[in-house]
Amino acid sequence: MKYCFGVDVGGTSVKIGLFTVEGNILDKWEIKTRKENGGEAILPDIAASLAEKIKEKQIAQAEIKGIGIGIPAPVTGDGIVKNTANLGWGYKEVNRELRELTGLKVQAGNDANLAALGEMWLGAGRGQKNMIMITLGTGVGGGAILDGRALVGANGAAAEIGHICVNYHETKKCGCGKTGCLEQYASATGIARLARMRLAWDEEPSVLRNEKKLDAKAVFDALKAGDSVAEEIVEQFGAYLGHGLANAAILVDPAVIVIGGGVSKAGDIMIPYIKKYFLEKAFFANRETEFMIAKLDNDAGICGAAKLMIDAE
Amino acid sequence: MKYCFGVDVGGTSVKIGLFTVEGNILDKWEIKTRKENGGEAILPDIAASLAEKIKEKQIAQAEIKGIGIGIPAPVTGDGIVKNTANLGWGYKEVNRELRELTGLKVQAGNDANLAALGEMWLGAGRGQKNMIMITLGTGVGGGAILDGRALVGANGAAAEIGHICVNYHETKKCGCGKTGCLEQYASATGIARLARMRLAWDEEPSVLRNEKKLDAKAVFDALKAGDSVAEEIVEQFGAYLGHGLANAAILVDPAVIVIGGGVSKAGDIMIPYIKKYFLEKAFFANRETEFMIAKLDNDAGICGAAKLMIDAE
Repeated sequence: MKYCFGVDVGGTSVKIGLFTVEGNILDKWEIKTRKENGGEAILPDIAASLAEKIKEKQIAQAEIKGIGIGIPAPVTGDGIVKNTANLGWGYKEVNRELRELTGLKVQAGNDANLAALGEMWLGAGRGQKNMIMITLGTGVGGGAILDGRALVGANGAAAEIGHICVNYHETKKCGCGKTGCLEQYASATGIARLARMRLAWDEEPSVLRNEKKLDAKAVFDALKAGDSVAEEIVEQFGAYLGHGLANAAILVDPAVIVIGGGVSKAGDIMIPYIKKYFLEKAFFANRETEFMIAKLDNDAGICGAAKLMIDAE
Repeated sequence: MKYCFGVDVGGTSVKIGLFTVEGNILDKWEIKTRKENGGEAILPDIAASLAEKIKEKQIAQAEIKGIGIGIPAPVTGDGIVKNTANLGWGYKEVNRELRELTGLKVQAGNDANLAALGEMWLGAGRGQKNMIMITLGTGVGGGAILDGRALVGANGAAAEIGHICVNYHETKKCGCGKTGCLEQYASATGIARLARMRLAWDEEPSVLRNEKKLDAKAVFDALKAGDSVAEEIVEQFGAYLGHGLANAAILVDPAVIVIGGGVSKAGDIMIPYIKKYFLEKAFFANRETEFMIAKLDNDAGICGAAKLMIDAE
């Protein structure tokens, strides 16, 4: 077995990679995610695209270990999705359906868990066996690796770190229906909200008051420029995120926490703000946990999906 | 291989059990924990006690799979303890030392994690593969089972659920040095503190005002007798514990949460108070999580220790 496919299904596009089992990316490409009619075309489209690539590269079926595939939803250990927010799918047996379409072995997993696995395999967590990855995007996703394997859980919903409660006094609801979730403060939209609230608090001068687009990038750019109001906003962000990660670490006891997603593009400047509050609530055994910014960017998902299949028995 | 030993090292006594690999307890006994001189006698005492039992039962060394041993401290995957609060040990290579003393294979683990494994194997979690166990005693311990295996973590400190922060406004320090830990409210001492604070709050009549020993048992006894102040105290206990467990479930995604330790002897009456607040903060995928009271009592540790060895490669 020389090759493996890694597939990352997103709401607008499906990313696909062809890997060697040793971890080299030989090729990567994207296809559209056709969500109409309950997303019935998604798996057949993937199968057709893989068949084309296999033909183009003149690979024998017997040389392919299989297909790992990440789905933006809880996925059970045997590849069953019960519902999705973004794909149109209800109940779907991903392993079975894609296997029948391709004749290849298939293993599905949650996309955030697989992004974590990808960062461990080829990115910031290389060489680690115990890791948490948190993805700060429009929402906050999470994945955990324990002893080298992505944590799945009874419902395929392990490591949903974005929904840890970090503020028991919040009155505004999170997208999930609860209140006080980490996602309400540490996502791109959460940071924008913290910024609006801070600016409304008083009239202290700040470059952020002239921003047309008051988003996470604007806040971190202002911080880099020395803006003190931006620093207060990042302190708040760091407090919620640091506290949430300390609680997550109490469960998982990771050697390293990798921070990914669009917000993480601000870079290492955010780490001291997170670590300060992490240490405030970290259990003594977790105080040496390292913080790193993710390295694989949008490729983490396909890398982790391939790794999931490569490690499958 | 027919037999296996399960050992549970505690601060005052060491519990030992002889098991068949199928899960029958053939014998169990205790020896004293001699903590003097840095606890140097503990492992030799265990080895001597096992040798005696092997002789008494006329078991051949070749019929014994090995020894599983639970330690009240973080234990790494290769059986190394870095420090202990109650045994006098500093750095100790438990697997190696006890193997050299007995000639048997040894696998050490954290006692709370092994209690969880024991409840999964032979107790309340029988048949489950994803489980959290929380032990409400003088302190609050925790263990998590994922995919049938006890979670260990990078420092052997996974699932330290007692130190999740459930109150960001607490000013009193937990034994661990942090503030707002679940242990400060859900342990036996925590419940007694909640009770004292509630009684000090006003002068509402309660049978608890006449209690000489205002402990967790007194509070639950008063609840069973219909005392409304006791019910308020249990509501508070349930809120902190339910919220803490909801956050733990977000990481681990268990099918069942097992509640053990001395406080759990109050029985099923506590479950609705915990579940009510669990549901308030549970992620939607975790809402079906079942709650159960532990069944193995003091035997959970030896059972889990034996199971750890039986499952070892």
